[in-house]
Amino acid sequence: MKDIFFTPGPSELFFTVEDHIKNGFKNNIYSISHRSSEFKIIYEECINRLKSFLKIPQGYHIAFLSSANEIWERIIQNLIEEESGHCINGAFSKKFYDFAILNKINATAYNYKNQEYKINEIANSHELLALTLNETSTGIMCDGDTIRKIRSKVDSLIALDCVSGIPSLPFNINDVDTFYFSVQKCFGLPSGLGVWVYNDKCLDKHNKLKEKKFTGTYHSLHKLHEMSQKFQTPETPNVLSIYVLSKVLNDMMKIGIENIIRDTNYKSSLLYNTINKHESFSPYINDKNIQSKTVIVSNCKKESDYYINILKNKRLIIGKGYGKVKNQIRIANFPTHSKEVFELICDELTHIK
Amino acid sequence: MKDIFFTPGPSELFFTVEDHIKNGFKNNIYSISHRSSEFKIIYEECINRLKSFLKIPQGYHIAFLSSANEIWERIIQNLIEEESGHCINGAFSKKFYDFAILNKINATAYNYKNQEYKINEIANSHELLALTLNETSTGIMCDGDTIRKIRSKVDSLIALDCVSGIPSLPFNINDVDTFYFSVQKCFGLPSGLGVWVYNDKCLDKHNKLKEKKFTGTYHSLHKLHEMSQKFQTPETPNVLSIYVLSKVLNDMMKIGIENIIRDTNYKSSLLYNTINKHESFSPYINDKNIQSKTVIVSNCKKESDYYINILKNKRLIIGKGYGKVKNQIRIANFPTHSKEVFELICDELTHIK
Repeated sequence: MKDIFFTPGPSELFFTVEDHIKNGFKNNIYSISHRSSEFKIIYEECINRLKSFLKIPQGYHIAFLSSANEIWERIIQNLIEEESGHCINGAFSKKFYDFAILNKINATAYNYKNQEYKINEIANSHELLALTLNETSTGIMCDGDTIRKIRSKVDSLIALDCVSGIPSLPFNINDVDTFYFSVQKCFGLPSGLGVWVYNDKCLDKHNKLKEKKFTGTYHSLHKLHEMSQKFQTPETPNVLSIYVLSKVLNDMMKIGIENIIRDTNYKSSLLYNTINKHESFSPYINDKNIQSKTVIVSNCKKESDYYINILKNKRLIIGKGYGKVKNQIRIANFPTHSKEVFELICDELTHIK
Repeated sequence: MKDIFFTPGPSELFFTVEDHIKNGFKNNIYSISHRSSEFKIIYEECINRLKSFLKIPQGYHIAFLSSANEIWERIIQNLIEEESGHCINGAFSKKFYDFAILNKINATAYNYKNQEYKINEIANSHELLALTLNETSTGIMCDGDTIRKIRSKVDSLIALDCVSGIPSLPFNINDVDTFYFSVQKCFGLPSGLGVWVYNDKCLDKHNKLKEKKFTGTYHSLHKLHEMSQKFQTPETPNVLSIYVLSKVLNDMMKIGIENIIRDTNYKSSLLYNTINKHESFSPYINDKNIQSKTVIVSNCKKESDYYINILKNKRLIIGKGYGKVKNQIRIANFPTHSKEVFELICDELTHIK
């Protein structure tokens, strides 16, 4: 048996990735020019599959960048003039806020420690409001209903961090103006690509903003958009990753997003049940409405290394708590994790003393 | 026979790349955490091999970014306060200058159309002076002697664009303060990684500058440097590319950089001789001192597609002229191109009517 990664990302590769990468060699994908018609076809196909698989509405556009970190920086540069609001419930949403502060943006932090967003607290008129579909550090999820309620309350552009949420956690794309993810989480690719989706409202805002302030060079939004319309990127991109993402999307479309969401729910129930019943474990997040279904965080009696090493000996690789937290484990529930491997890890967790 | 790419990059993969990428799957490289000790070992090994193979002196440091485009932006943000000088001899050096202008830098352009840099023209006291080891668009090279003469004349920080030059074109690293390249040219990797080398003088300048102006967020130089000291990147990087670069460096170290340089010289002589003798071709650059040895640009009597298609039928893939140029071809001479395949392409070129 080979190792199975349940780490929160990079994680277990989607089960078709190895074959796709190998086929890429046969088809010279990694040697073709990023200005060639062959590349444009790959790019267009990837965009079309993203739109189809994620049911991205008309008026939304897609650009490829290198990481979610980069996308935070580009959102701040390109969509915020003076101020923004950030709902913070973990290290990653905090980091986006910190980036805004570094950019001299008058950013407001709404801090929610292990609890749901309090919608009434959020000001209605931020230029941009940053939400997180799934906080990878704390395992806090935001459901589609909450996002809808926020949408109907505020006038802001809404940015949704979907890094470890998409496509497993559903939300209505019309409820946000921009969202983004990186490919090494639910899509099970090697790391090194960020996908940024933005709508016409973002473009309008950016086009006004770029007359007033510096919005970047090769990755300013209008440049990204202009090149994306031509199925290209401003720079030489990670061609391998765009190619493999397109192939994995095709595979996921055959499975169907509804099946992926249903299986995610089933597997997460299995794992939370296991954690709830176990005397050494307890969920870090108690409020069931916000317990993440894709990154499950559990407190544990002993230091996390104890459990990590027991499972490692069984070739099951799980994550430690984020940062310096000692008594937590994190277990990812991504589309590549079958029900069978989830039953396996739940069994093994149950047997740990 | 499979296709052989002589395009200026992305190009033919280094001949060991496919095996290294496949081995990466066996060793779970694409699933490990970018904060794990396994990754830190890969990172450190890659850095050490770069330092050893390129003979990088003490006091120079290395960071991984996503592209040369990004490195241009980061150099401008992190190392230039008010003004810079740019020796421009093609589309890429022009683009770096354009990025500086977009950043409201008072940038001076020194334009050299198909000729050597005129050292006396260059002001002594730019904050930063941008030179290009090899202009991929025009096939203009700058030799180590010229760089040395500029170094002894000016007080500026010197930045050298080595995108399609390193490791095939020698220069003395002590003659520059920062240099950079992307991996899809001479190193023969899939695209998606930029390597930025900077010395202590750059760090000093940056540390003063960051008190006065915005120098970026996750990729500001001090953040990159701080994480690099811990053998990590601020964001989740292109782990696959860092891993494969390290492996290819190991292979190239066995060949030896002197042998790579010598073979580059031999193969470029072969190709220029072929072009010079051919009645349909003539070198775009006539001054032999600046004729690139890694990206050979030739004028041609008919439109480039004619020659490109003849060679394509022989499974030899060459590049067209940069941008909208119609009557030019570009042929890359990278370390993965053996003498034998260079003799082959020269033969085929000779036979074209």
